[in-house]
Amino acid sequence: APWDTPGAARLDEQTMATWIRRTAKTATAREALATGVKAVFSVEPADVSLLHVLFYAASAGGWDDLIDTEGGAQQDRIVGGSQLISLRMAEELGESVRLSSPVRSIAASGDEVVAGEVSARRVIVAVPPALASRIEYDPALPGLRDQLTQRMPMGSVMKCMAVYDEPFWRADGLSGQAVSLPGPAQVIYDNTPPGGSPGVLLGFLEGDEARVLGAATEAERREAVTGTFARVFGERARNPSGYIEKDWSAEPYSRGCYAGVLGPGAWTSYGRALREPVGRVHWAGTETATRWMGYFDGAIQAGRRAAEEVRLG
Amino acid sequence: APWDTPGAARLDEQTMATWIRRTAKTATAREALATGVKAVFSVEPADVSLLHVLFYAASAGGWDDLIDTEGGAQQDRIVGGSQLISLRMAEELGESVRLSSPVRSIAASGDEVVAGEVSARRVIVAVPPALASRIEYDPALPGLRDQLTQRMPMGSVMKCMAVYDEPFWRADGLSGQAVSLPGPAQVIYDNTPPGGSPGVLLGFLEGDEARVLGAATEAERREAVTGTFARVFGERARNPSGYIEKDWSAEPYSRGCYAGVLGPGAWTSYGRALREPVGRVHWAGTETATRWMGYFDGAIQAGRRAAEEVRLG
Repeated sequence: APWDTPGAARLDEQTMATWIRRTAKTATAREALATGVKAVFSVEPADVSLLHVLFYAASAGGWDDLIDTEGGAQQDRIVGGSQLISLRMAEELGESVRLSSPVRSIAASGDEVVAGEVSARRVIVAVPPALASRIEYDPALPGLRDQLTQRMPMGSVMKCMAVYDEPFWRADGLSGQAVSLPGPAQVIYDNTPPGGSPGVLLGFLEGDEARVLGAATEAERREAVTGTFARVFGERARNPSGYIEKDWSAEPYSRGCYAGVLGPGAWTSYGRALREPVGRVHWAGTETATRWMGYFDGAIQAGRRAAEEVRLG
Repeated sequence: APWDTPGAARLDEQTMATWIRRTAKTATAREALATGVKAVFSVEPADVSLLHVLFYAASAGGWDDLIDTEGGAQQDRIVGGSQLISLRMAEELGESVRLSSPVRSIAASGDEVVAGEVSARRVIVAVPPALASRIEYDPALPGLRDQLTQRMPMGSVMKCMAVYDEPFWRADGLSGQAVSLPGPAQVIYDNTPPGGSPGVLLGFLEGDEARVLGAATEAERREAVTGTFARVFGERARNPSGYIEKDWSAEPYSRGCYAGVLGPGAWTSYGRALREPVGRVHWAGTETATRWMGYFDGAIQAGRRAAEEVRLG
């Protein structure tokens, strides 16, 4: 576990920003490292502990595995959108899935737990800690667990998509994929559907860019994002036929993206409470994974581990 | 405001631990600085941003004002306990104070706001951000405000009191007040009531000590705490006639002590959302104060400022 690693306290007492300042020799190197942190965690290097960055990369196999499009975390897209996975699973499960029933309280007594309107012998909470912290627990959570959930905030992301009649950049031999140190859209993907029409460019606003442009109007954001696209792919990018955006920080059932992030001190002081069940309440979700924390793979690993706890419990 | 100070980003990107490591030349100096941070914030130096430490001290007039017993924040005790203030105020206010009615939702529509079972034209939320974040808001909070509340956790404190027949240390010419770098009770006060009987020694477990001993049994904590007392005040301290303790981290309506603490990056990225009203919802509480943040004085300043907002609004 991260808190057992040699020198954990030393790695966890500093921010990634401190490490970058000490390590990177040029302004470009500092900016490139910062952009990498923002692309992976959607926070600024000041917001995240060096130990968390190292653990997160290690849990994926290495830093390159996080950012690579070939053979890395950024390789695949789900045709039709990722939510299709949960929609199809819900279809299979039928009426046992209850929608529009947010769980606001979990009360345990004897060998029963009541979670919202459902009662059961055990409960698995599979939402991120920042959401789990909004549930009212009876009895109250142990201090260490409750305080952990106060220390795993979500990052700031806006996802901005410009729609064009066709993916015109391909005719110029361009992939539609770019990292641009001058922002605001520093990470850009070709999000054109498999059929090849319409052409879609996707730009992420992450960390400061999400917060600063989040306070602007949609028209201002559209201009800022297509401005980056134009600089990278040519002037045609400045005039999309459509523009769609999503601010994940403003969604009360997400509270930000992509996963809970640990600032300095959190892993070493509170990490032990991340997976430890509290009575009949178990914790899953990708933040509790030891492999591919923050990703689908991590969520699956965590779900299996929690299910096994319940089976043996 | 902290985010406007010259060099704010540089001050906010590093933890207090990083600053201590770079600045203090000896292990004793590092420990003494760490103990000071723990006494004031009840977190480890790794958990708090340098900018927050500087702002917090500045808002009190200086670092000495935070830790001094003469002329500083630690000078006065309320005879009978601090809660007498709110109890007496509640008496004066009579039936307009509703007890046992936690507000779990705040819903605004038109020119009305419904907070729990009360409806009004405006609402002032005066709980710490870590508690405000547990309220369900309709409409949902702007992302910046919601994410701020994910980034102001409470510190970890256990307050441990040993009761003796008399304040025996006074006969030895000792004040009963001590700072001990070897823990676990690093900050100790004479908490004997004004009448002089019984004798009470109060030891704070803060940061790591609160978390580590928080997981032990009460008997183990009593032994550990009276062990510190005995080292400082002599062997008689080892056998109190009574022992009382309180773990503030385990209280769901406190979630820790003494006030919300900002880790690196939080002030510069999210600080603007601390006092900015959201429609008809206003924010008070000592965390929103510019003078004596974290103290009674700050709470009063913040209450007056919020009341003025409502009056003008």
